[in-house]
Amino acid sequence: MKFAENNDNITLQPVAYVRNHRPELQDDLWGDVVSEVVLVDTLAEEAFEGITEFSHLEIIFHFDRVPEEKIIQGARHPRGNQEWPLVGIFAQRGKNRPNRLGLTIVRLLERNGRTIRVVGLDAVDGTPVLDIKPVMREFLPREEIVQPEWSTELMSQYWK
Amino acid sequence: MKFAENNDNITLQPVAYVRNHRPELQDDLWGDVVSEVVLVDTLAEEAFEGITEFSHLEIIFHFDRVPEEKIIQGARHPRGNQEWPLVGIFAQRGKNRPNRLGLTIVRLLERNGRTIRVVGLDAVDGTPVLDIKPVMREFLPREEIVQPEWSTELMSQYWK
Repeated sequence: MKFAENNDNITLQPVAYVRNHRPELQDDLWGDVVSEVVLVDTLAEEAFEGITEFSHLEIIFHFDRVPEEKIIQGARHPRGNQEWPLVGIFAQRGKNRPNRLGLTIVRLLERNGRTIRVVGLDAVDGTPVLDIKPVMREFLPREEIVQPEWSTELMSQYWK
Repeated sequence: MKFAENNDNITLQPVAYVRNHRPELQDDLWGDVVSEVVLVDTLAEEAFEGITEFSHLEIIFHFDRVPEEKIIQGARHPRGNQEWPLVGIFAQRGKNRPNRLGLTIVRLLERNGRTIRVVGLDAVDGTPVLDIKPVMREFLPREEIVQPEWSTELMSQYWK
């Protein structure tokens, strides 16, 4: 067992960038956003070979517009809303999180060489993408999902 | 729109480490593995506040045992199996991928202070964890999943 060390840095490089018409981060209304995800020049176009056999992809991206001083290390009310409980940053999906990683399942529309077009990616124009994985049924939850009421309320306008 | 640059490094730090009885990476049989995920000392225990209201979590981790020279930049046969098609590294979930990010949905068993216990995390003992997010129904696919036959075959023994 390895123990936590402050200087255990892990250095990543973007594998792609997001291109869309959302210049700014916003809390809701991401459902209809169509984005292009364009591979970086250092990766081969073959990295997308066969991707259109899958309907959905998981995109891991970096919330690079979130300033470091705004990162929550403990708990906060989701979206700063006092009507929702004070919960830990790992019990919510907000962007002000350690490592600023975003993660969303998107629907794949098409591939064109080094570019894929997807629907429902909640990332702004220019966002660095760190990984793209195909969604397989076997990786989805095998049991019923339980979640608190506040999270259902929070999500009510997200994909409108 | 920002364009791809080779030197766009993104530096992350582990938020937790995995503790379990799997010392080595293996392709299959991850279904019954129980793991502890222990927060690093630099994060407050409150980061897990309220997490047990959720049944499932997404864990993003780093395949730190994969040597850099084994990373696939283009396409390969999944698991090196010639009977499966040559597909791009972003059309498969193998560990030999750019940035070596792993991502799995696990079932949460319990929380004890800075430690959570989970089932079905396909990571070895000591693996650095980069993020933990609660699974919300609204973030799961809203349409039917389509995936190629090879991926269903590949996954057949994964969770046994």
